[in-house]
Amino acid sequence: MGALADRVLAGDRRAAGRLISQAERRDPQALQDLGILYRHGGHARTIGITGPPGAGKSTLVDALISRFRKQDMTVAVAAVDPSSPFSHGAVLGDRVRMMRHADDVGVLVRSMATRGALGGLSTAIGDAITIFDAMTFDIIIVETVGVGQSETDVVGHCEAVILLQTALGGDDIQAIKAGVLEIADLIVVNKKSAPGSDRMARFLRESLHDRPARADGWTIPVLLTEASENIGVNALVDAVTQRFEHNRAQDDRVSVTRRRQVAAHLMTLADVEIRSLTHRLISGQAAPEAWQSVLERRSDPWTLSAQLFKKLR
Amino acid sequence: MGALADRVLAGDRRAAGRLISQAERRDPQALQDLGILYRHGGHARTIGITGPPGAGKSTLVDALISRFRKQDMTVAVAAVDPSSPFSHGAVLGDRVRMMRHADDVGVLVRSMATRGALGGLSTAIGDAITIFDAMTFDIIIVETVGVGQSETDVVGHCEAVILLQTALGGDDIQAIKAGVLEIADLIVVNKKSAPGSDRMARFLRESLHDRPARADGWTIPVLLTEASENIGVNALVDAVTQRFEHNRAQDDRVSVTRRRQVAAHLMTLADVEIRSLTHRLISGQAAPEAWQSVLERRSDPWTLSAQLFKKLR
Repeated sequence: MGALADRVLAGDRRAAGRLISQAERRDPQALQDLGILYRHGGHARTIGITGPPGAGKSTLVDALISRFRKQDMTVAVAAVDPSSPFSHGAVLGDRVRMMRHADDVGVLVRSMATRGALGGLSTAIGDAITIFDAMTFDIIIVETVGVGQSETDVVGHCEAVILLQTALGGDDIQAIKAGVLEIADLIVVNKKSAPGSDRMARFLRESLHDRPARADGWTIPVLLTEASENIGVNALVDAVTQRFEHNRAQDDRVSVTRRRQVAAHLMTLADVEIRSLTHRLISGQAAPEAWQSVLERRSDPWTLSAQLFKKLR
Repeated sequence: MGALADRVLAGDRRAAGRLISQAERRDPQALQDLGILYRHGGHARTIGITGPPGAGKSTLVDALISRFRKQDMTVAVAAVDPSSPFSHGAVLGDRVRMMRHADDVGVLVRSMATRGALGGLSTAIGDAITIFDAMTFDIIIVETVGVGQSETDVVGHCEAVILLQTALGGDDIQAIKAGVLEIADLIVVNKKSAPGSDRMARFLRESLHDRPARADGWTIPVLLTEASENIGVNALVDAVTQRFEHNRAQDDRVSVTRRRQVAAHLMTLADVEIRSLTHRLISGQAAPEAWQSVLERRSDPWTLSAQLFKKLR
């Protein structure tokens, strides 16, 4: 019991990979191992990178790995695919680029596919961070395609969330403005040599300027990079480091970010509980009378929900 | 109390719109109204339409509306945007096409934006169906862009889920195969005059044929349409009708689909409860000791989750 956790704590990568796989299946022993590992964590700094397909996320991650390695920091990457039925075919291919770090023991890259299930993506991210953190990686990067709700999932778990954009889909600029300002800690316009990049960066800066200040006092920087040529990457790492320091300065005992991370983690576990409860309801193992009366419309889901969750209130 | 519910039951469209807006804010009175309306529902047949941007969803919905109206059936449409920070700017524009039904009292089209929040999309769909069903619409169509997990959200709520594809993104064919066969009840290759449509339909049929039969005994048809020219729409409506009949034939008292719908509904409500619980944990209003020990890594999220949800087990 906890044997896999011990091996992970000793830095065993195959054990880490196996635990991730077991955790993906919600194996009960794996969940116990994760609990053990969690208590050994807290060292790593976490970076989330999200953005639309084609923005250059993998290329940027690759450049960040190189930069952090030059500072003698170890880096683990969880590249998470939200397994949509549609698109994303190219993502794994891009990741081949990161393979040049394959012989570097200070780097670990793990691709994780998650099913479309509710909470699936967020659960996988929380698990991976817990494991890599226990392995004492200095930096953990979570890369995820920004579609649907994946970008909100990554936010909860990472203390520096980078939103990657390019000017190539410039007509979407209003759409970007709507949601993005709530989730990103840093905004990067990649492929800066593409036409419209400067205009887009300016637009984003102005939009941010018009917004009320963030509750945590952080000012979101907008940076330009050309990740494939390593341009702007040093400045980005500096900005990320500032973000980390900002978080740390906020701490009394535990920071807002920390609370947010635990909350995100808890939400994913709660989701598993709810799925289990739902399964028991459907199969008649829990509240068969109440369930039946909803099916027959003598009751309704709101009433049943209130009954079931009264104890949580 | 319940005044809005009464007006919705009387067919008042402004009341319906207001209730949807209130429900989006999770107004407690609105939730009670929804509970009342739910008990009056069960009449409508529900169709979900999902697929990538540009597949022609709105055009198809428009064609379906016309076809059902010819059969003297009333139709309500909930067009749901999963409000991603990225993309989707064009979706609302497309919907203008449906406006030609604006003067038809047998048709109601409602666009719903949902925030990126977990469960947000699914909650909105369940609410809309409950309301339109209580208004005695014969057919309810839920149209949603197939990104992230929106397509899985729509599945739980609708008894005939149409996945719309085109051959235009033909290189994504493997990606489609992976996830789609689990969620769709009918697959439609739209823009059939585009090159590769027949090949794609054949590929999908062969892929489906290689899969184990569905537990409910339903065989997924693959149809070709040119929705903008009303080609193939009659055949699609026939297939949807067969799907409805298949569901009905399966019923003893309540069908598998019905259980799935209630479960989907309950999951969205559970999500609201979990968010509320998380909020109380963060603010120290619930389990302050246990929460603090996770923050300090003397405990872990898995242990806390087990404590909190013991009562649900």
